[in-house]
Order: sequence, then C-alpha cells, then structure tokens
Amino acid sequence: MTTLGIDLGGTSYKLAVLNGSKILAHDQRPTPKDKPCLGVLREMADSVRELLRKSGHEIREMQGIGLGIPGLVDAVAGVSVFSPNLFWRNEAIIQPMQELLGLPVRMDNDVRVAAWGEFLYGSGQGREDMVFVAVGTGIGSGIILRGAIWRGQEQSAGEVGHLTLVKDGPLCNCGNRGCLEAIAAAPAVVRRAREQVLRLPTLLRTSCQGDPGLLTARMVGEAAAQGDELAQSVLREVGEFLGLGLAALANILNPQVIIVGGGMAQAGGVWWDTVVRTVRSRAMPVQSQVELKLAALGPEAGVIGAGALFRV
Amino acid sequence: MTTLGIDLGGTSYKLAVLNGSKILAHDQRPTPKDKPCLGVLREMADSVRELLRKSGHEIREMQGIGLGIPGLVDAVAGVSVFSPNLFWRNEAIIQPMQELLGLPVRMDNDVRVAAWGEFLYGSGQGREDMVFVAVGTGIGSGIILRGAIWRGQEQSAGEVGHLTLVKDGPLCNCGNRGCLEAIAAAPAVVRRAREQVLRLPTLLRTSCQGDPGLLTARMVGEAAAQGDELAQSVLREVGEFLGLGLAALANILNPQVIIVGGGMAQAGGVWWDTVVRTVRSRAMPVQSQVELKLAALGPEAGVIGAGALFRV
Repeated sequence: MTTLGIDLGGTSYKLAVLNGSKILAHDQRPTPKDKPCLGVLREMADSVRELLRKSGHEIREMQGIGLGIPGLVDAVAGVSVFSPNLFWRNEAIIQPMQELLGLPVRMDNDVRVAAWGEFLYGSGQGREDMVFVAVGTGIGSGIILRGAIWRGQEQSAGEVGHLTLVKDGPLCNCGNRGCLEAIAAAPAVVRRAREQVLRLPTLLRTSCQGDPGLLTARMVGEAAAQGDELAQSVLREVGEFLGLGLAALANILNPQVIIVGGGMAQAGGVWWDTVVRTVRSRAMPVQSQVELKLAALGPEAGVIGAGALFRV
Repeated sequence: MTTLGIDLGGTSYKLAVLNGSKILAHDQRPTPKDKPCLGVLREMADSVRELLRKSGHEIREMQGIGLGIPGLVDAVAGVSVFSPNLFWRNEAIIQPMQELLGLPVRMDNDVRVAAWGEFLYGSGQGREDMVFVAVGTGIGSGIILRGAIWRGQEQSAGEVGHLTLVKDGPLCNCGNRGCLEAIAAAPAVVRRAREQVLRLPTLLRTSCQGDPGLLTARMVGEAAAQGDELAQSVLREVGEFLGLGLAALANILNPQVIIVGGGMAQAGGVWWDTVVRTVRSRAMPVQSQVELKLAALGPEAGVIGAGALFRV
C-alpha cells in the first residue's frame, strides 16, 4: 500500500511517498509565509506532483494523502480550527486538497500524527495503549487507546504541556503560569542556562562564546554529555518536571507505554535518567512501572504517521 | 431487569435490590473487621439472602450481582489485587461469590462503579465521555470513554488524586509529596482550618467548642455557608487546587463532562465556584469549557453503579 504523507510546520513542510514506514521518496520545502491557506495547499499539491514525477511514481498508485497540521484540528470535518503558527482559523483542508489532487485525504494534529507513526512503526509497535509526548519548543502529546487515536470531545485531548505544575510559576505562551511547557521544554533549558552561565564555571561559556544570548538547548545537551555540572543540573531540573508530567499521564491513563520524542529527546543521558527516575518515584506504585521509551522514528515520525492515517 | 448491587467500604457496606437506578430494597451493614476475605464474602452473601427474603424477592429473579471494591482490582480476573482499607491482597472475589449465591457476579473498583452509576443514571446521562471525581477523605476518579469504563493497562487508571501539584508539598498517604489528595481532600480542609482557628475570628471556634481537634470538614462547609471568612478562605484554597486537578483531566482527556461527587461535593457555594472558576481560567481555551457538574446520585451512586455493571 503506497500513500503520501505531509508534515506541515510553521517554517517548513516535509512530504514523502511511503510504503508503510518505508520512505520511497521525500522532500522538504519552506512553508509559504505570504499566502492564505488555499495558497499553501496549492503549493503543497504542486510539490506532491513534482515529487511523484521525480521519483517515478504515478498519482493513481497512491491510496491517499495524509496531513499533519499544527494546532487545533477537526480531523473528522477536515478543518484546521486554529493554528497560531500558520495564522489559520477555521480553514477547510480535506475538501480543497481532495479537489487539488483527486485523492482521498485524511488529516490530524501534527503531534497525533507523529504518535500514530510511532505507534505503528516506532517505539509503540505491538502495544495497544500509549502516549507519545513531543518535547521541543513546546510540549504536546498524542494519545492512543485501544489501538485508536483518542481525540476527545472537541478533538483537543493530549495537552499535557499545559498541566499546571507550579501554581504561580513562570508565564507560559498560553497566558497561564507554571505550565509544564513553560518549565520543561527547550526554551526553559535555555532560560535556566542563561541565568547561570556567567556566574558559574561551565563549558557553556565557551559554547556560547561568552554571550548568553547565543545559548541553545543543544549546547546544554552537549555540555552535559561532556560532564559539565551546570548543564547537567539544568537538565536534571527540567527532567524532573517532565517526569512529573509523565507521572500524571501514567496515573490518569495507566497506559502500556509512554514514548518521548521531539528535539529534547536527543538530550539523553542525565536528562532521560532524571525523567525515568522521577516517573518511577512519583507516580503511584503500579502506574510508575509504565514502560518508558525514547521515540524511534526521529523527525520522520510525522510524515510517516501522516501517510499511515490510511492504515486504520 | 433486576440486579443486586453491593458497595463495599472499609467501615460498612451497602447492598440493594435494583431496577436500573430504582432502589427496590436496601440495607447497610458494618464491614466485618476480624474476618478473612472469604468470611466477608460469606457475610455479604447472607445479607443479600436476608434482604431478598425481607423484601419479597427471589434470588432467581436477579440477573446478577455487581460489587464495588475499594483499592486496586482486576475486574476481568475478578480479583481484589490490593485493598489497604480491607487488608486484602490478591483475593479472589468473583468466583467464590458466584459459588455462594449461584448468580453471575461482576465487580470493579468502588470509584469506577460510582462513576458508572452517574454515567447511566446521574449527571452523566446522555454523555459518551466523562470523568467522575470523588472527593472525600481521598480523591479518586472513574473514567468513561466512548461509553465504556477505561481501566488502563493494569486496571489502575484514574488516580487523579496523586497528581503532583506542589513538588515539595505536604506528605501524602501514598508516600509522595504535594499530591492533589494531600492538598485538596477533606483532611486538608480540616488541617488548614485547625492551623488558623485560634488565631482568627471565626464561627469555627464555636463549632469546635474551642478545641481545634474536634473540627471537621463539614463544620467548615457549614461556617462558609454562613459567610464565615476563614472557612471560605480555606475552601477557596482547596477548591483552587482541585480546579487545577480537573483542568489537568480536561487538558489531557478533553471529556464531555467532569462530575464531582463524594463528601466534599456538599461544601457547595464558595468551594464549587472556585473549582469552576479555576478550570475555566487554568485549562486550555477549548478544554476549559468542559461541562462541570456535581454528582446527582449522592452516596447511592456506588450501589446503583454496582448493580448496573450488568448493563453494558
């Protein structure tokens, strides 16, 4: 079964011709900034046709095209309800895309689509119930229960990034305070490192050439891997909060496995050890034994999961 | 369809002959303290026969008997896995009870059974997805998704009482710190009131006859209803934390309705207003609009839901 997948982001989109998890051809393009939704869909349809042509595939071989769209989506109606990154509000997606390509179209939220990819072909293979948590500039999750994506009443389930973990904590992008996302995602790593980089001896001073403004979460991960104490203590702090968030998921849902992906998942080492230790010690006894895994498909989970929306 | 329901607690158990939510006959007995599990089951079976006799029913009219058991249960295997209140560990329930009464037996955790009652006959009627949160001496929940009880991988889903809301907060009975249960259940109300009752002017000084050791959560609720400022501020504090816990449920599951029951639900007024306001302001925009209701069946939700385990 051959399908097409598109993983749309605020800055770029990926597209691929897929056979299950096997990427037969792929491309990545910048997301047009100055076009309305329909214009973006037209460009994506053109890129699809070009990719098919270059890779020697015919559109009629394709079972359909799956789309991962950031923000709040109505997967059933085929609408992007609200996507702050793309400035979309109530934009029809499935119907125009079907007309543009003459193919069946399916869609879901980008994190759910990545969860679906990990569920079918990555770290979730063989499981029934799982939560995939993506930790990058934000924190989101995709929930799979009894082998199906759990979307919730308004298709808004999975917002684990906005659990309040510190009642009067730092301001979050959502307008609230102390959300998991505000204290455990990559920007929190950078913020904590910046606050201390000039005050304590650390490799990070070299990484950022003495300018805290140049620090990145990746630099913190790399310094931690080299044994830098400041970097490790920052990763332990954010890892503990992420662990509390995962413990909440384990306590509430008692899933078989929780999978962690996204850019922060590359921090590994001290960070992941802290996450795991926190879940084991802070969730309830039975729930704390949940299987914890890092994601297997990396940045391709989205495009693979999008194409796999046709495998239900 | 006539069924039997038993709601077993640490100090007493209720039993009823039911037609749907209609209680045709009922009784309440002390839970035997000095007997092993099988002895408790024998006493319950005797009470069932006596109730049937007194109320003029025949055991062969009964479709089956449903049991709500506190603690961790394996509803499928019919086993009480761990019940700290009853000192039970891996006790078979369904099989011996079937032999004792010659009736089909079903069982689940006590909170899930109450959730099932509210779902079918109480505040959850007509909904598909809901969470029932019981707030009393502890905080537990029962989750219904797509019209079925969600138990989780080890049948341990729903432990919302052990979300960590204050990382280094007060010690919880579970051994961890800052759990929702430790800061928002009835004992937290009593603790907060006791700390302040002799320091501030309050009606509570009269309620407890000047002895903070005699304060109860009910006294705090009553004083708050009469406009007592200390009592109201205590209920606002715990209500805000409960609201954060419900916001977590709304963000993660995006259910249609969250129903709050248990002894604390009688506190009403300031407490419930604070709970609702906190969910509306601290959950994400879409999720914060979740329907919030107080439970409708009161203390009978458990026995009604137990009997209704045969309606699936």
